[in-house]
Amino acid sequence: MQERVYNFSAGPAVLPLSVLRKAQEELLCLPDAGCSVLEVSHRARPFDEIIIQTETNIRKLLNVPDNYRILFLQGGALLQFAMIPMNFLKNTGKKADYLISGTWSKTALGEAKTQGETNILWDGAESGFRRKPKPEEYTGNPEAAYCYTCSNETIQGVQWREYPDTGDIPLVCDASSDIFSRSVDISRFGIYFACAQKNAGPAGVTIVIIRDDLVERSPKELPKMLNYKVLSDGRSMVNTPPCFAVYMVKLVTEWLLDHIGGLEKMEQRNAEKAKYLYDVIDRSHGFYRGHADKEYRSMMNVPFVLPSEELTKKFLDGAKTHHLTQLSGHRSVGGCRASIYNAMPEEGVLALRDFMLDFARKNG
Amino acid sequence: MQERVYNFSAGPAVLPLSVLRKAQEELLCLPDAGCSVLEVSHRARPFDEIIIQTETNIRKLLNVPDNYRILFLQGGALLQFAMIPMNFLKNTGKKADYLISGTWSKTALGEAKTQGETNILWDGAESGFRRKPKPEEYTGNPEAAYCYTCSNETIQGVQWREYPDTGDIPLVCDASSDIFSRSVDISRFGIYFACAQKNAGPAGVTIVIIRDDLVERSPKELPKMLNYKVLSDGRSMVNTPPCFAVYMVKLVTEWLLDHIGGLEKMEQRNAEKAKYLYDVIDRSHGFYRGHADKEYRSMMNVPFVLPSEELTKKFLDGAKTHHLTQLSGHRSVGGCRASIYNAMPEEGVLALRDFMLDFARKNG
Repeated sequence: MQERVYNFSAGPAVLPLSVLRKAQEELLCLPDAGCSVLEVSHRARPFDEIIIQTETNIRKLLNVPDNYRILFLQGGALLQFAMIPMNFLKNTGKKADYLISGTWSKTALGEAKTQGETNILWDGAESGFRRKPKPEEYTGNPEAAYCYTCSNETIQGVQWREYPDTGDIPLVCDASSDIFSRSVDISRFGIYFACAQKNAGPAGVTIVIIRDDLVERSPKELPKMLNYKVLSDGRSMVNTPPCFAVYMVKLVTEWLLDHIGGLEKMEQRNAEKAKYLYDVIDRSHGFYRGHADKEYRSMMNVPFVLPSEELTKKFLDGAKTHHLTQLSGHRSVGGCRASIYNAMPEEGVLALRDFMLDFARKNG
Repeated sequence: MQERVYNFSAGPAVLPLSVLRKAQEELLCLPDAGCSVLEVSHRARPFDEIIIQTETNIRKLLNVPDNYRILFLQGGALLQFAMIPMNFLKNTGKKADYLISGTWSKTALGEAKTQGETNILWDGAESGFRRKPKPEEYTGNPEAAYCYTCSNETIQGVQWREYPDTGDIPLVCDASSDIFSRSVDISRFGIYFACAQKNAGPAGVTIVIIRDDLVERSPKELPKMLNYKVLSDGRSMVNTPPCFAVYMVKLVTEWLLDHIGGLEKMEQRNAEKAKYLYDVIDRSHGFYRGHADKEYRSMMNVPFVLPSEELTKKFLDGAKTHHLTQLSGHRSVGGCRASIYNAMPEEGVLALRDFMLDFARKNG
């Protein structure tokens, strides 16, 4: 194997090395299958066992109540942004409430507008997307089709601590960049979904956890691949699912259960990792400036800026020579961003911390 | 590695062993990337090189004209069944022509009906889906939005030799189960698409080759992930593409170019492989009966029946003990089916032929 770097990419992102080794070991031949997981029919027993076990692992990790289905879909979060209003907004005569806390909730709003009427409950754009709203800053529409929020804004590094209380209105949550990073109470949500390529596996599969009364509301006239009812009744196998990506989610969830010991333990680790970096930022006398307000800081994505573009470039170049890569901020906002998902080991974060301290000392 | 079987699955299906070995070798670390292809950002250089090279390989293999775009999408052929009428039928005031030659074209018709008016030009259901229509058996609507056909019906094993001539009406072709199995003239088609998991790679990516004047017709109001124009302008990276599946298509197309020597060579091999099995069927004095009429027989999927259900079960059980697996017919039609895609080696087909001969001798 060539030398592996510390990869701070926001997604696709670092995976646990033991998971990669397991996938590598089994790549030519899945145990007892006689062929690779890349070749096995989705209707054959070996894959059926994989998809069932993946669901079982997710149920266990997130303590998913029995009245929720777990789907493995394609098209990323971006297709969910459209499917949600296609299924639950269009032709209902209702509006959907949106809380806009960053790029991804704003993008979701744009997709919803192609399907029906929306209502922006709160928009953090004016404040530069540095925080989530406080409960007293917005009032949900009691007749809303649903209320939409993003759990963790990957680009701005803004994360909910306490999710909104929307009462009887289904709360729809994009958890793409923080699923499995901490315990959550799934019963708070109507739909809790996440593309896998940040914290749950590779690109190519999206996990959708959806309450069964919502599933039943999907309009019959929707195409099969856009219809939650059809996809759910077909156990995510209406057509061929992205088998390998599902298999990788199985391995990642096994790692979380068996190696990490569950989401409370994972959350502790993540809080420690994030603290290393935020402490450097807070003690740098303004050399590094974090983006988010302190109480909404993400444990997953740490965006920060340096005093100038020149220093930013020097920082990124220097980091690379220390095998610390993918630290550029999103092209829409610039600066730097360290994504420190579950699979980023503490050593990687400590290496980045040490580099940041050293760089500030020499250039501050 | 455990013992690999000969896997006659209709999809996901056998992949070239050298491709699997290459993927295995690189799984922990893509050369010069410092991380796995499962972890690399789709915006980073290593993945950009992969997706560009994959497109280059496909252009070379299929001799794709410059006025066609090549997209790597998610959702399988089933989502294309809906996207095509969403983009090119709905709100056009036109009808779409459909040629129904088996389960997959029939399924595509069902999805189109959710979006607009369709016109069945020819329906092979009455004849049990044993053939494609002759040119004199159907007349295209000169005002049709497009004319839809399936290149190779995976379940019935019925394949076009000469594609329909639809003049100025865009011909839309689902080539999921025979892309890369032979040379085709892409300029005959408006859209030529295929999910990868039969002949082009693993499940999780769909290759869409689309003429650029059609791309420009996509309605602006469609969600991004369902809009060919947006997907094309975004170079299939409007959001994160299924990176690993694209990478596997790159390896498979490299194998076709470098190891096989192109699609004419591949077609020769496929014709030889198919002949081995059809000869057994034709010389079995009715013990094995093929499904398709001779002149429409598929080179990819060879469905056949035995004299009784008991013998079918005995055949399938016996085949397994000879490491010949996944030979059951599709659950909708029963019997047996041998899928002998590009990556099925001649040895596998010969092993099946020998087993078939022996089984007929002992049980005929």
